Amino acid sequence: MTKVIVIHGPNLNLLGLREPDVYGTRTLAEINEMIRLHAEKLGLEVTIVQSNHEGELIETIQQADERAEVIIINPAGYTHTSVALRDAIAAVRLPTIEVHLSNIFSREQFRHESVTAGVCRGQISGFGADSYILALYAAKRIAEEESS
Amino acid sequence: MTKVIVIHGPNLNLLGLREPDVYGTRTLAEINEMIRLHAEKLGLEVTIVQSNHEGELIETIQQADERAEVIIINPAGYTHTSVALRDAIAAVRLPTIEVHLSNIFSREQFRHESVTAGVCRGQISGFGADSYILALYAAKRIAEEESS
Amino acid sequence: MTKVIVIHGPNLNLLGLREPDVYGTRTLAEINEMIRLHAEKLGLEVTIVQSNHEGELIETIQQADERAEVIIINPAGYTHTSVALRDAIAAVRLPTIEVHLSNIFSREQFRHESVTAGVCRGQISGFGADSYILALYAAKRIAEEESS
Amino acid sequence: MTKVIVIHGPNLNLLGLREPDVYGTRTLAEINEMIRLHAEKLGLEVTIVQSNHEGELIETIQQADERAEVIIINPAGYTHTSVALRDAIAAVRLPTIEVHLSNIFSREQFRHESVTAGVCRGQISGFGADSYILALYAAKRIAEEESS
Amino acid sequence: MTKVIVIHGPNLNLLGLREPDVYGTRTLAEINEMIRLHAEKLGLEVTIVQSNHEGELIETIQQADERAEVIIINPAGYTHTSVALRDAIAAVRLPTIEVHLSNIFSREQFRHESVTAGVCRGQISGFGADSYILALYAAKRIAEEESS
Amino acid sequence: MTKVIVIHGPNLNLLGLREPDVYGTRTLAEINEMIRLHAEKLGLEVTIVQSNHEGELIETIQQADERAEVIIINPAGYTHTSVALRDAIAAVRLPTIEVHLSNIFSREQFRHESVTAGVCRGQISGFGADSYILALYAAKRIAEEESS
Amino acid sequence: MTKVIVIHGPNLNLLGLREPDVYGTRTLAEINEMIRLHAEKLGLEVTIVQSNHEGELIETIQQADERAEVIIINPAGYTHTSVALRDAIAAVRLPTIEVHLSNIFSREQFRHESVTAGVCRGQISGFGADSYILALYAAKRIAEEESS
Amino acid sequence: MTKVIVIHGPNLNLLGLREPDVYGTRTLAEINEMIRLHAEKLGLEVTIVQSNHEGELIETIQQADERAEVIIINPAGYTHTSVALRDAIAAVRLPTIEVHLSNIFSREQFRHESVTAGVCRGQISGFGADSYILALYAAKRIAEEESS
Amino acid sequence: MTKVIVIHGPNLNLLGLREPDVYGTRTLAEINEMIRLHAEKLGLEVTIVQSNHEGELIETIQQADERAEVIIINPAGYTHTSVALRDAIAAVRLPTIEVHLSNIFSREQFRHESVTAGVCRGQISGFGADSYILALYAAKRIAEEESS
Amino acid sequence: MTKVIVIHGPNLNLLGLREPDVYGTRTLAEINEMIRLHAEKLGLEVTIVQSNHEGELIETIQQADERAEVIIINPAGYTHTSVALRDAIAAVRLPTIEVHLSNIFSREQFRHESVTAGVCRGQISGFGADSYILALYAAKRIAEEESS
Amino acid sequence: MTKVIVIHGPNLNLLGLREPDVYGTRTLAEINEMIRLHAEKLGLEVTIVQSNHEGELIETIQQADERAEVIIINPAGYTHTSVALRDAIAAVRLPTIEVHLSNIFSREQFRHESVTAGVCRGQISGFGADSYILALYAAKRIAEEESS
Amino acid sequence: MTKVIVIHGPNLNLLGLREPDVYGTRTLAEINEMIRLHAEKLGLEVTIVQSNHEGELIETIQQADERAEVIIINPAGYTHTSVALRDAIAAVRLPTIEVHLSNIFSREQFRHESVTAGVCRGQISGFGADSYILALYAAKRIAEEESS
Repeated sequence: MTKVIVIHGPNLNLLGLREPDVYGTRTLAEINEMIRLHAEKLGLEVTIVQSNHEGELIETIQQADERAEVIIINPAGYTHTSVALRDAIAAVRLPTIEVHLSNIFSREQFRHESVTAGVCRGQISGFGADSYILALYAAKRIAEEESS
Repeated sequence: MTKVIVIHGPNLNLLGLREPDVYGTRTLAEINEMIRLHAEKLGLEVTIVQSNHEGELIETIQQADERAEVIIINPAGYTHTSVALRDAIAAVRLPTIEVHLSNIFSREQFRHESVTAGVCRGQISGFGADSYILALYAAKRIAEEESS
Repeated sequence: MTKVIVIHGPNLNLLGLREPDVYGTRTLAEINEMIRLHAEKLGLEVTIVQSNHEGELIETIQQADERAEVIIINPAGYTHTSVALRDAIAAVRLPTIEVHLSNIFSREQFRHESVTAGVCRGQISGFGADSYILALYAAKRIAEEESS
Repeated sequence: MTKVIVIHGPNLNLLGLREPDVYGTRTLAEINEMIRLHAEKLGLEVTIVQSNHEGELIETIQQADERAEVIIINPAGYTHTSVALRDAIAAVRLPTIEVHLSNIFSREQFRHESVTAGVCRGQISGFGADSYILALYAAKRIAEEESS
Repeated sequence: MTKVIVIHGPNLNLLGLREPDVYGTRTLAEINEMIRLHAEKLGLEVTIVQSNHEGELIETIQQADERAEVIIINPAGYTHTSVALRDAIAAVRLPTIEVHLSNIFSREQFRHESVTAGVCRGQISGFGADSYILALYAAKRIAEEESS
Repeated sequence: MTKVIVIHGPNLNLLGLREPDVYGTRTLAEINEMIRLHAEKLGLEVTIVQSNHEGELIETIQQADERAEVIIINPAGYTHTSVALRDAIAAVRLPTIEVHLSNIFSREQFRHESVTAGVCRGQISGFGADSYILALYAAKRIAEEESS
Repeated sequence: MTKVIVIHGPNLNLLGLREPDVYGTRTLAEINEMIRLHAEKLGLEVTIVQSNHEGELIETIQQADERAEVIIINPAGYTHTSVALRDAIAAVRLPTIEVHLSNIFSREQFRHESVTAGVCRGQISGFGADSYILALYAAKRIAEEESS
Repeated sequence: MTKVIVIHGPNLNLLGLREPDVYGTRTLAEINEMIRLHAEKLGLEVTIVQSNHEGELIETIQQADERAEVIIINPAGYTHTSVALRDAIAAVRLPTIEVHLSNIFSREQFRHESVTAGVCRGQISGFGADSYILALYAAKRIAEEESS
Repeated sequence: MTKVIVIHGPNLNLLGLREPDVYGTRTLAEINEMIRLHAEKLGLEVTIVQSNHEGELIETIQQADERAEVIIINPAGYTHTSVALRDAIAAVRLPTIEVHLSNIFSREQFRHESVTAGVCRGQISGFGADSYILALYAAKRIAEEESS
Repeated sequence: MTKVIVIHGPNLNLLGLREPDVYGTRTLAEINEMIRLHAEKLGLEVTIVQSNHEGELIETIQQADERAEVIIINPAGYTHTSVALRDAIAAVRLPTIEVHLSNIFSREQFRHESVTAGVCRGQISGFGADSYILALYAAKRIAEEESS
Repeated sequence: MTKVIVIHGPNLNLLGLREPDVYGTRTLAEINEMIRLHAEKLGLEVTIVQSNHEGELIETIQQADERAEVIIINPAGYTHTSVALRDAIAAVRLPTIEVHLSNIFSREQFRHESVTAGVCRGQISGFGADSYILALYAAKRIAEEESS
Repeated sequence: MTKVIVIHGPNLNLLGLREPDVYGTRTLAEINEMIRLHAEKLGLEVTIVQSNHEGELIETIQQADERAEVIIINPAGYTHTSVALRDAIAAVRLPTIEVHLSNIFSREQFRHESVTAGVCRGQISGFGADSYILALYAAKRIAEEESS
C-alpha cells in the first residue's frame, strides 16, 4: 500500500476563514477529510501535516522517507522565496508534487515564479481543494510506475 | 454527459519520437488512446485535436463551446509567447486547463513564465502523459461543480 | 478614388461576443458595416479582411499594394510579439495605421509595448470601434497628402 | 454644443521652427487655426492652451471641466515622466485624448512608454498636425456617446 | 549524394523587392537559382521551401528527415520569438544551420538574441545571399563528417 | 513654540473632489482646518502651503527655515520622479517628514519607490488625512528632541 | 477599550545593544515601557510580542483577532522577503500598521521595497522608537473610525 | 563678440549654503562674479539666469538664440529626469554645454545617466565652480570654430 | 584560548546522505568530528550547532558572544534570501566567516549573490568539508590579530 | 590575389588540448595548416596571427590594411566584453568576418551577445574548425564583390 | 611648475584616420602638438603617452606620480569595461581627469556608463580635441588649489 | 612535493601603498615573503607571479601545468569582467583557487559577481593577506586528495 505525506505550508490552517474569493470556503479540516476519503478510495495511506514554520516544513520533508513514498506539498508563501525548502526537496529524493489552491499565474507577478517547483516532479495549481485530489491520483500513478 | 476537448499544440504530433528523455516514449496515438479510455471511465465525451498552427489552435478554442464544456490544452511552445492564444482562451470563457508533459520549472528560464496560464482555471505540468489524465479528472470535477 | 485595406487580426472575429467590458458589444459584422458606411462617405474604396493566422496576415500585408494605397491594421495579440508582422509592414512600404479597440496603456504591462507600431505611420488606440473610423479619416488625409 | 479644450505641452510653441523632419513645418499658430476650422465644421466649441510649465498644465486640466466636456492633450516631453500630470487627468474625470505629432514607437526607447496614456480614453500618435484633427473627431464621437 | 533542404521563413518571398539597402537586390527566385547552381557544383541534392506560416515551417522541419540529411533555415522574423520552431528543430535531430542575410548584431537590440540558434549546429549571418552558399558548404562538410 | 510648515504637492487642492475611494471625501480646506486644530492642541505654530508647481515647491522648501523648524511634505506625484525636490530637501537640512494619504505600497508598482523619502527623516503613508496629524505628532517629538 | 497588539520582528530584542547609530540607544524593554505608557494615556489596551521566528510571527498575526482590533508590526528583516507574512496579514483582515525604526528609503536599495506593506493599512518609518508611538495614535484613530 | 548664456538649474541658488562637502563653499553670487570675470577675459558677453522652475528653464532655452550663440547649462536635478528640457535643447539648435559641479559618476547610481546630455555638444562635470570656467573656454572655442 | 562557534544552516544535517556529487559523502557527524580535531590542533575551543530554523539560527548568532569570539557559519539556503540573518550578524558584531561546501559561483545564478556575506569578515566556498577547516585557520588568525 | 588575415584571439593557442568536447581535437597548428591549404585552393594569400593580448589584437587589426583586404577574426573570450576591439574593427574599415568554433547561442547566456559582431560584415559560428574555412569562402566572395 | 601626464587609450593612435565624422580629422600627432603648445602657454610640463594595452595603461597610471601631479586620461574603449583601470586610478591617488573626444551620451547606450569616471575628479566629453585643452585648464586649476 | 603557483593580478604590485583601509598595509614583497614561509612549512614548492596584463595572466595560467599542480589566483579587477581569463582557467584543468584580499560582497554591487570563480574549485575572500595563506592550506588538501 503506497504511503503519501501531504504537507500544508504557512497560513493554510486558516483555509475557509481566509479570503474565500481566492481560496474557497472549505476549512482545512474539511479538506483533510476529503483528502483522507479519496486516499482511501485510491488505496493510499496518507499522513497530513501543517506548519507555518519553514524549519518544521524542512524537517518534515527531510524525514518524509520514513513515512511516505511520495510527497504532496503546498508550500504557500514559501513557494516564491525559500531556497532552503528547495534544497530539502532536492535532498530527500522522494518524488514530490507541488500543489496550489489558486492559479499562481493569475495572481501578482511575484507569484508566477516558483523556487521550489524546479526540483519537484510536477506542479498542479488552480483547482481549489481539488488540486490535492489530483495530486493523490498523480501520486498513485507515480508509485505504480516506480514499482513496475 | 460532460464534453471535453483536448487540444495538443505544436510538435506534440512528434511525441514518442522526440527527445524521449524529456517527453517520454509514448506516441501521440497511444496517449490519445489512453485519454479516450480514461474519458470513457470518467463518463466524459472527448474530442481530440492537434495542430502546429497558432491560427488553427486559436480557431479551435474559439469554436470549442460548440463541442465542449471544458478545454484541456497543451500549448507547448506557444505557452511562453502567444498573447493571441491567451486572448482566445479569455474570449471563449470555457473553463480551461493548461497541461504540460514536462515540468516547465525544471527547464530553461524562458519556459518558467506562461503567457496563457493566467487566463486558465489551472495548470498541471510535469507528469508526462498522466498530465492529461489528471486534467480529465479536473475537468470532471469542474463540470460537476458548474452544473451543481 | 483612394483604396484602403482594413486588416483585422486574431480573435477579432469574436467581437461583440467577447469580453464586452473590454471590447464593446458590437459584432465584427456590425463594425465592418460601419467601416463601409464611413468609407463611402469619405470617398474611400475599402477592402476588409480578418484572419487569426499570422502567416495569412503577413501575406495580406505583402499583397496589399495590389489592392490598396493605405493599410489599416489591428494586429491584436500579435501586436506585442510578432517581428514577422513588423517585417512585412516594413517591406510593403505602404503607409500603415495601427489600430486598437482598447487603450493598450490601460491594460497589462506586456500590452504597453508594440512591436509593430514602430514601422507604422501612426497608431490609434482606445476608442472602441471608432478607432477604425478615425483611421479612415487618417487614411484619407495621408492619401491626399501623398498625392499632392 | 460640445466644448473641447486642446492643451499643448512643453516646446510645442516652437512647432514649425523646430526639427521639421520630426515634427513638420507648420507653426503652432497655423495648427491652432486648422484646429479651430475643423472644430467649427464639427460643431465643437474649442479652447486652446499652450504651456511649458508642468504646474500650469496640471491646473489647466484641473479646471478643464469648467470649460470643456472633453480634453485633448499633447503632453510632449512630460508624457514619459509626469506622474503628477497623470494624477491630474485621473482626478478631473473628463474623457481625455492623448495626442502626439510623431509616432512615439518610431523614436527612442524611452518614448515608447507613456505615463499619462493609461488614464486617458485613448491615444493618437504619428499623424503630424492631423493627430489633433483626428482627436477632434474622436471628441465629437465621445461627446455624442456620453450624451446618448 | 547528400540531400539538403533549404527553408526560407516569413517575408523572404519579397526579397529583392524589399528594403534593398538591408537585404540586397536579388529576388528569391534568383537566390534559389544560385543555391541550386552551387548545390549542384557541391554534389548536393537540394529542396527549397518558403513559407510565411509558422505552422508550415514547423511541419516542414518535422518532415525534413524524409527528404534531407541537413537543414538550412532562415527563420527571419521568427528567429527572435518562436519557441515552437526551436522545439521542432530540437525534435527532428537533423543537423541544422541557421542563416541570415543581414548581420543580426548590426540591427535593433531585439534581433541580437536568437531563440532558435541554440538548438542548431551553427549560425551564418550577414553575407547577403552568400549566407546560403556558405551554408551549403557547411552542410557538405557536416554530411561528410557524419558519414565518416 | 515650535514652527511647522505643511507643504501639499500637486493635485492635493482637488482633495475630496478627486477619487474619493482612494483619497477620502474631505476637502483640502477641511483637512487644513483639522491640521490647524491639532497643531494648536500640540502647541505647534503651523503654516500651510499648496502648489502644483515643482519650482514653487522647491522654493517653499528652500525658504522653509525662515518660517519653520520642521517640514511636513506630501510630494504627491513628484514623490516618484523629482530629483530636484530631493535635492531641495537635502539642501535645506530641516528635519522633513514625508506624508501620503494612500498607502503607496498598495498601488501601482511605480509608486512603491520614493525619490524624496531617502533624504527625509521618516515617512508616514496610508492613513488618509490622519497621515498629516501623525506627522504633527512626529514633528513635535523631533522638535523636543532637537532642543533637548 | 480598544485592544492593540504590537509585534516586534527578528533582531528587535537586541535594540539598544545593536548598531545604535542606525537604531538608537533605547533597549526593547525601555521601548515597550514607553509603548505601554502611551497606550495607557490613549486609552488603549496593549499586548506586546517579540519573535525572531517567521512561523511564530505568522501565528501571532493569525491569532491576533482574539486579543486585538488593530495590529502594529515591525517585520524588520522579514519586511523585504516574506510572502508568507504578507499572506498572514492579508488573511487576518485586522487593520495593520507597519512600523520601522529607521527610514527604509535611506538604507540599502533592497530595503526600499516592502513585501508586507501592500496589505497593511499604512506604514510609518524613520522616527526611531517614536514610530511605535505614532502607530498607537494611528491605531486609536482607526479604531474610532471603524466603530463610528 | 560672442554671446553666451549661462543657465543655472534648480537649487543652485543655494550654492555655498548647501552641502559644502559636495558642492563647495562659494555662493552663487560669488560664482557668477567669477564667471563674469572670466567671460570678460575671454572676450565673451555673458548673460546669467537661475531658475528652479522646469518651465522657465525650458523658455530660457527656447529664447536663448535671441541673446546668445552658445548655451552653458547646469540642469542640476532635472538632468536625470527631464525629457522636456532635452526637447528644448534639441529644438533651439544652439551648441549647448552641460555642466555639473560634482562628478555625477561618483554619486548615486540614478545620477550616472543624463537625459539631457545626449543632445548637448559636450559635458563637463566634477570641477566645482571651475566647471563653468571650463565651459566658457569651450564656448569660446566652439564660437570660433562655428564662425571660421 | 580562543572560542569559536560553528553554525550549520538548513539541510546540513543531511550531509553525506544528500546529493553526494554536489556536497561530498561525509556525514555531518564525521565533519563535526573533523572540525573538533582540527580545532584542538589549532588550540581553539569549538561549539557546534545545527538548525533548520531561521529563527533559531538568528538567536544562536545573537547569543554567540556569550560563548565565542569568532563565528563560522554556513547559512546554506538562507544565504541567498535572509535579510533577517544578515541583520543578526551585523548586530552581534563578532567577526563572522561565511562558509560553503560547494562553489556558489558554479551553481544556479540565484546562488551567486549572498545576502549575508556583505556583513561578514570573509567567505570561503567550494572546498567541501575542508571549507570549515580553512575557516578555523582564518578564525585563529583573526583572533590573534584582534588580541594583538 | 586577395590577401586575408586570420586573427586568433585568447586561448586559441590551446586548441586541441583544451575542452575537446566543446572545441574539437585539432590543434591550432593543424587548423592553421588546413586554413593555408584551403586559402591556396581559393587563390587567397593568407597571414595568420594568434595572441592572448587584447592590445596586440587591437594593433594587429589596426595594421591589417597593410597586409590584407579582409579580416577573419575569432575574438574568443574578448567577443563578449571588448569595446576596444570593437572600436579597432570599426576604425580599420576592412570588411571583417567574426568566427567562432562553438555555437555561441548553445552556451552560457553571457556568450549570446557579441560586442564586436555589430561592426563586422557577418558572423559564422558553430562549425568547429570549418568555421574558418567558411570564412575563407566568404572572404573570397566579399573581395570579388568589392573589386567588381 | 606643475607636471601633467596625458594618457591616450586604445585606438587613439588612429585619430584623424578613423571615423572622422565621430572623432574629427586631426591626427594624434597634431593633437599632441596642440596639447604641448597649450601646456606651455599654461606653464604646465606635459608628458604624453599612448597605448592600446590595458596593462600598459595601468602601469602608466601606477607610475604617474613619479612624473606628474595630475593625470589626464582618455580611456577610450576601456572606459566602459575596465575595473582594473578604475582600481589603478583609485590606487595612485593623483587627481585624474577623464576626457572623451565624442559625447558619450550621444552614442550607443553601452557608452553612457563609465566604469572609470567614478574615481576621477571630473570628466570632460564631447569637445573633440578641445576636450584635452579644457582638461589642461582644469589640471592647472586643480594644481593651484592643491598647492594653496 | 606539491608545486603551487600564486598569480597576482592587476594593481596588486601596489599593495601596502594603495588604499590601506581596503587592502591592508603590507606590501606585495612582504606578502610574498609570508606566502613563501607558509608554503615551506606546509611542504609546498611555490612560484609567485604578478602581472597587470590580462594577456600575460592568461599565458601564465596556460603554462601553469608545467610548473604547478594547483593554481592560486587573485584576478583583482579582471575578476568581474574577463571571460578570456575564465576560458584560460577552464582550459588548463588544474584545480584553481580564487583569492581576494577584501570581501567582494562588502563592496560595490559590480564586484559581487565573479566571472572567473565559476570555473575554479573554490573562492576565499575577505581575509586580507591571510586569504593567500588559507589558499595554501586548501591547495595542500586538494593535492593530497588528488594523489590519494
